[in-house]
Amino acid sequence: MPLYLTESDINRLLTVPIAIDLLDEVFKAQAAGKAVNVPRSRIPLDKGSYNLMSSAWHEKGVVGQKSYAAAAGGIGFHVLLYGTRGEGLMAIIEANRMGQIRTGSASGLASKYMARPESSVVAVIGSGYQARTQLEAVVSALPIKTARVYSRSPEHREGFANAATTDLEIGVSAVDSVEAAVEGADVVIVVTSASEPVLLGDHVAKGVHINAAGANGWLRRELDTQAVSAANLIVTDDVDQAKIECADLMRAVEAGRLMWQQVRPLSDVVGGAISGRAFKDDVTLFESQGVALEDIAVGEWVYRQAVEQGIGTQVGS
Amino acid sequence: MPLYLTESDINRLLTVPIAIDLLDEVFKAQAAGKAVNVPRSRIPLDKGSYNLMSSAWHEKGVVGQKSYAAAAGGIGFHVLLYGTRGEGLMAIIEANRMGQIRTGSASGLASKYMARPESSVVAVIGSGYQARTQLEAVVSALPIKTARVYSRSPEHREGFANAATTDLEIGVSAVDSVEAAVEGADVVIVVTSASEPVLLGDHVAKGVHINAAGANGWLRRELDTQAVSAANLIVTDDVDQAKIECADLMRAVEAGRLMWQQVRPLSDVVGGAISGRAFKDDVTLFESQGVALEDIAVGEWVYRQAVEQGIGTQVGS
Repeated sequence: MPLYLTESDINRLLTVPIAIDLLDEVFKAQAAGKAVNVPRSRIPLDKGSYNLMSSAWHEKGVVGQKSYAAAAGGIGFHVLLYGTRGEGLMAIIEANRMGQIRTGSASGLASKYMARPESSVVAVIGSGYQARTQLEAVVSALPIKTARVYSRSPEHREGFANAATTDLEIGVSAVDSVEAAVEGADVVIVVTSASEPVLLGDHVAKGVHINAAGANGWLRRELDTQAVSAANLIVTDDVDQAKIECADLMRAVEAGRLMWQQVRPLSDVVGGAISGRAFKDDVTLFESQGVALEDIAVGEWVYRQAVEQGIGTQVGS
Repeated sequence: MPLYLTESDINRLLTVPIAIDLLDEVFKAQAAGKAVNVPRSRIPLDKGSYNLMSSAWHEKGVVGQKSYAAAAGGIGFHVLLYGTRGEGLMAIIEANRMGQIRTGSASGLASKYMARPESSVVAVIGSGYQARTQLEAVVSALPIKTARVYSRSPEHREGFANAATTDLEIGVSAVDSVEAAVEGADVVIVVTSASEPVLLGDHVAKGVHINAAGANGWLRRELDTQAVSAANLIVTDDVDQAKIECADLMRAVEAGRLMWQQVRPLSDVVGGAISGRAFKDDVTLFESQGVALEDIAVGEWVYRQAVEQGIGTQVGS
């Protein structure tokens, strides 16, 4: 019988530092050919889209999918885990919180391998639901001391700064422009729902690492082509998915400023095929797509923990 | 909160005649551009494969997927239904029995449009789990009076014939060869797990309609190329899926005896774009792939019925 795990079960079990370690492990497995990812497919709906993506981590004996229908009325994510050895359906997991954690953690993982190891200042552009775990993960991965957050609404950025100061035990201040946020920052997080670029070439200083993790979809851009061109290394969690969904990179390719061959999978960096940072002054860019590999990796761990601790509800026949 | 429906819930609610009507409706919707199907994707496992397929029926406000991991230890099918208007996940449905019914019903639907309307004799090659609903659906769609079943094991074919005689209230007899089964048959059902062809060109008489519904996968064939070539019209429930999975047709194309343009979608026949049978003596062939469109169509109806009748268990938060 499958185990059903709710949002609150996940909240009890999973943390950002654990998720970063799990993603480290699964991207190494992918590099070694022991895990595979199938890019997101979408079906357009009247006011939204239905999304489906899948992955297998053979070493751990698990395979499955994440699905969600995003529409005007809301969005609910679910992950299904199957055993690879005839166990059938093992778990049905509500995956809003899990998705928030794994997306932040992917940026944390990328920052660990790509940012300067002494990075102490982080800029956050955006102050929504996803921004919280983005910041938490970067703080978890690097010796961050201060963070500056900018978003268009003064109320939102102040609220975000206050909450983050308490939660993360670092100094977080709200600032009133992108320029003020990025000045002197070692790491820049861009996590907005912008359709027009918010991070421009002029905002990109030498040596910085950028995590671009905002809403995906080929109509949305967060970085302009000059900012993309400034990067010495561009990495994404799935190159195939980026080719059809990552507007930042798609526009740069169209403009003749980038070739897809230059965009490297995160597994190459985590697995050690390439270095995440060759020189101190390099600009590095992680374009986060959000892939099922990440969902299956954290889902598998959560499921094992839940079984061990007797958390969750068995359903079905 | 999503509704969880078990195999026994489905067994109480869904019948083959109802499923045939639902499939008739959804293939008409597909023909009119009001429903879409996304072909199966697979991830290979050590001893089996993980399978995922999706579909939307916009008119009915439903979208979702079927998933299953087929491995040595067993196989379990699940369908997830989402609302297209922000309802989120509406249902989690155990789908072994539902899959058996919808697969049979697809052949029933094809037979209704493609076989001679006066068809009275049916041959069944194969006597497994799927063969039962294949026969039931053809009997439901046409004025069948007698059926002859052949499979390699005398015990299995006798058992099948006895059970079908009781269940379907027609005469069903077991015979000891493919030749004896197909002689004088108006409709031939081939539903085996054969890897080498069991229905050969010599077995194909004028005017016959063939449903080929055995295990899919490009390593498995049920019809030889001569049998495929004998068909005046070849129809499948998804042409894109057939191109990567239907070994009967793939081999015929490779051999230069068929072009993919000649293979027509079932929606063309059901929607009226083409006639299922032009002449009495035509040989017609339905190659059943099994598509998510069928799962979503029956799943949506089952879900509505379950809500109305208070069947199923609400799960999650």
